Amino acid sequence: MKLSHYDSQGRSRMVDVSGKTAGKRTAVATAMVRMSPAVLRALPKNPKGDPLEVARVAGIMAAKRTSELVPMCHPIPLSHVAVDMELCENGVRIRASAGTTAVTGVEMEAMTAASIAALTVYDMCKALDKGIEILEVHLESKTGGKSGDYKRLSAKSRAKGRAAASRVSRKRRGKSS
Amino acid sequence: MKLSHYDSQGRSRMVDVSGKTAGKRTAVATAMVRMSPAVLRALPKNPKGDPLEVARVAGIMAAKRTSELVPMCHPIPLSHVAVDMELCENGVRIRASAGTTAVTGVEMEAMTAASIAALTVYDMCKALDKGIEILEVHLESKTGGKSGDYKRLSAKSRAKGRAAASRVSRKRRGKSS
Amino acid sequence: MKLSHYDSQGRSRMVDVSGKTAGKRTAVATAMVRMSPAVLRALPKNPKGDPLEVARVAGIMAAKRTSELVPMCHPIPLSHVAVDMELCENGVRIRASAGTTAVTGVEMEAMTAASIAALTVYDMCKALDKGIEILEVHLESKTGGKSGDYKRLSAKSRAKGRAAASRVSRKRRGKSS
Amino acid sequence: MKLSHYDSQGRSRMVDVSGKTAGKRTAVATAMVRMSPAVLRALPKNPKGDPLEVARVAGIMAAKRTSELVPMCHPIPLSHVAVDMELCENGVRIRASAGTTAVTGVEMEAMTAASIAALTVYDMCKALDKGIEILEVHLESKTGGKSGDYKRLSAKSRAKGRAAASRVSRKRRGKSS
Amino acid sequence: MKLSHYDSQGRSRMVDVSGKTAGKRTAVATAMVRMSPAVLRALPKNPKGDPLEVARVAGIMAAKRTSELVPMCHPIPLSHVAVDMELCENGVRIRASAGTTAVTGVEMEAMTAASIAALTVYDMCKALDKGIEILEVHLESKTGGKSGDYKRLSAKSRAKGRAAASRVSRKRRGKSS
Amino acid sequence: MKLSHYDSQGRSRMVDVSGKTAGKRTAVATAMVRMSPAVLRALPKNPKGDPLEVARVAGIMAAKRTSELVPMCHPIPLSHVAVDMELCENGVRIRASAGTTAVTGVEMEAMTAASIAALTVYDMCKALDKGIEILEVHLESKTGGKSGDYKRLSAKSRAKGRAAASRVSRKRRGKSS
Repeated sequence: MKLSHYDSQGRSRMVDVSGKTAGKRTAVATAMVRMSPAVLRALPKNPKGDPLEVARVAGIMAAKRTSELVPMCHPIPLSHVAVDMELCENGVRIRASAGTTAVTGVEMEAMTAASIAALTVYDMCKALDKGIEILEVHLESKTGGKSGDYKRLSAKSRAKGRAAASRVSRKRRGKSS
Repeated sequence: MKLSHYDSQGRSRMVDVSGKTAGKRTAVATAMVRMSPAVLRALPKNPKGDPLEVARVAGIMAAKRTSELVPMCHPIPLSHVAVDMELCENGVRIRASAGTTAVTGVEMEAMTAASIAALTVYDMCKALDKGIEILEVHLESKTGGKSGDYKRLSAKSRAKGRAAASRVSRKRRGKSS
Repeated sequence: MKLSHYDSQGRSRMVDVSGKTAGKRTAVATAMVRMSPAVLRALPKNPKGDPLEVARVAGIMAAKRTSELVPMCHPIPLSHVAVDMELCENGVRIRASAGTTAVTGVEMEAMTAASIAALTVYDMCKALDKGIEILEVHLESKTGGKSGDYKRLSAKSRAKGRAAASRVSRKRRGKSS
Repeated sequence: MKLSHYDSQGRSRMVDVSGKTAGKRTAVATAMVRMSPAVLRALPKNPKGDPLEVARVAGIMAAKRTSELVPMCHPIPLSHVAVDMELCENGVRIRASAGTTAVTGVEMEAMTAASIAALTVYDMCKALDKGIEILEVHLESKTGGKSGDYKRLSAKSRAKGRAAASRVSRKRRGKSS
Repeated sequence: MKLSHYDSQGRSRMVDVSGKTAGKRTAVATAMVRMSPAVLRALPKNPKGDPLEVARVAGIMAAKRTSELVPMCHPIPLSHVAVDMELCENGVRIRASAGTTAVTGVEMEAMTAASIAALTVYDMCKALDKGIEILEVHLESKTGGKSGDYKRLSAKSRAKGRAAASRVSRKRRGKSS
Repeated sequence: MKLSHYDSQGRSRMVDVSGKTAGKRTAVATAMVRMSPAVLRALPKNPKGDPLEVARVAGIMAAKRTSELVPMCHPIPLSHVAVDMELCENGVRIRASAGTTAVTGVEMEAMTAASIAALTVYDMCKALDKGIEILEVHLESKTGGKSGDYKRLSAKSRAKGRAAASRVSRKRRGKSS
């Protein structure tokens, strides 16, 4: 197992993608901004339309700057970016999608859009509740590219997988010591 | 209860801080990048020093661009930024701190540094595990400013508080319906 | 009469403001996006709130990047930025205000916010009408600074002034030739 | 009639262009900076060459950052950008052209170049005349893309069209009330 | 002989590359940061890994922003960027490489990466030695593009060439006067 | 001797300057772009004014973005930036100056302005001579700050110093082995 972005001598670098094939690629990432019910009730009361629009715009704009923020990301043209915001019981659920027809994937663009949209929600609500927390920032799915399509397992399936992996891990460490 | 950054007519805007007093302010934010034990074991094997250094640099640089990313954030001079990365049992724990002597706080700068450092860790490890998740992005503490100091409660205390708030919330909604 | 930003030898440079006194300064700028009645009627029909919110956010964010865009502008902390958008008979009227407590004025920040908000309105409507035009981008007023307060004359007064100046100008050119 | 950048539910997003065909596209936009004759006479007196060169460079650089400024613009590689500045009787006339071989047009890039060049002229002259106004920021022509070529009508033809449209508009409003 | 980026009337502009053929292009640039032996000895003493990693990351990130910094550079997608840092007898030697499959070369990207990496080394060491100097920032080699491959001559060969050219130059000036 | 920007545990960070005193600080940096006589002769032939103006503007704009490029640099308001370009026998000599009234120095801003101006000269001339080299990028002088004023020694004095230091260095290494 080898980290991305490191060469054989352990030096970080932006990997060479000049030999990769261009093609349609998409990615969807999510984030959850958990806030107290009191703050949540304040959100939709805004008289002039949807306050989450600011966060949506921030997320879309951030997707376009991913390669400026994440050091080893390739700068790529994006064919679309969308950020959906939904009020749910415990907070605001964010779903960011991105697409390209370039030679690398857009996972980081979707992740960045979701993260910055979440930070923007936090920024608008932080005066009401400093304990607001961002969680569940993860890749929901991706399509295209050499590694093929990916769909995140449900939380339940993942929990099982983690437990199993953890057991294996404990065994291995037991053996190696 | 009123959202920040919205005027009396519900229009988003960068609030006027020209009347606020300059003074020393600090903030600490955290993020957790949860990954499988297998990926975690790959991290420190890098032959030429600490691969988390890239994420540290990314976090520090992102803090300086917070006001470009979060629409209603004020651009302020930062007197310091630091990002600490720690390998723990379930992943990488990130702790970002920021300081200023300006008229507004640096909570968003610390939150942004933690988030982008976390995204960078994700970017380096995503080839190994697409299920990596960022969570626990929250404000740990802040000092200075009119609203005074803040220290996040422990997870345990918060859980109690949430349960209580949830009960109150259910009651209120029951009443209002 | 001497241009700003040029030294005695005619070289462009960012003028030295280190000797200027810090103080509260504000500026208000406007822009008008003139569009056909048909496009104008399409604008408020958006089911989920105010489509001009995107332009407002774009204007506020652009104000913070003024010194990156206008070569000789000083980078300054902004104490507030607001952009108001109003549908009027011939299009969308934009009014941007900015404030600082720094040593230079914020005229360019207000002008930039108004311009980019106008470009964003254009971008959203250009599929409907390529003939949309941005006009009346000007400084409405400013306060603070050594040059003191300024309030733009009404269009009528200005037209008179221009006619007078034009007569003077023609005379001078007559004389000099 | 439907705004660009809004989905069927009225949410702003960067539209998906992944199915569009790449091809040569160009756009030309203009802006006019109207200033008093006195300021205009000061402009060419600069001993070391053309002061409008600063504005030209600013416009070219801004074109490259269009997608950072206008929220729903796609980031695209530009194959050329040029900004021409011309002193005329009432001020400075700006003409910006841009080209690409990508899947979306460069109207916004040309418009942004013209706008920022105009703001830069304003910045250099504002100490002499705070009443300087930017106007006539519009698309002059475009080529390529699915919507085909476009050439702006002369001011005269447009005035006629506006008058006609205005009559229609008044009638319709009369009917609907 | 004609400068790049100037049209036939002497106006600077981003040259039109829409007719050029896309293809694999690479470039390698170098920079040398000369410092006193005392500072050099301080560099590797850092307890937690390679302090040059910060400079490496800075160089890679700067390569991606070349077209924002160098006014007439085309924005292009980069297929790879790497920066190698080496401690040598007189300082730190930097070697930056970049690649693209676009229609223009990446010489400026490699040069920018080397320059910013060098500035970052300077920044980390400047408290120890203000006399640190950056030199030998040049293109080492390039491949691809209409002008073909290029390999810099060794310093020795170049010195001979310069001497010869200088003699020619002196002669020419002698003749023309 | 300790590197800047590293804490006691060897972690890179932006140092805390919140306790430092604000005051007037200036810095001057230089760069030299060495080119062949043939290229040098092509430079001033540009019919419409000074081609070095583009490089001057690029340098000034880059100074404002120093903290975005150099990871551990503090973002500070700049009170002035100027870049002078001079044709000399072997190429173009660049001299960048910067000033602030903030709590940290502007050495990096001056160095960055000089470097990017030099890269821009390179970009305009590279079609004529790929062997162009940037050298002598160094701090010429600084004023203000706790470390006081600094004036670079002449090249001659420095050469002597280096020779002496080198002798000492060789002796030490001899001893330690």
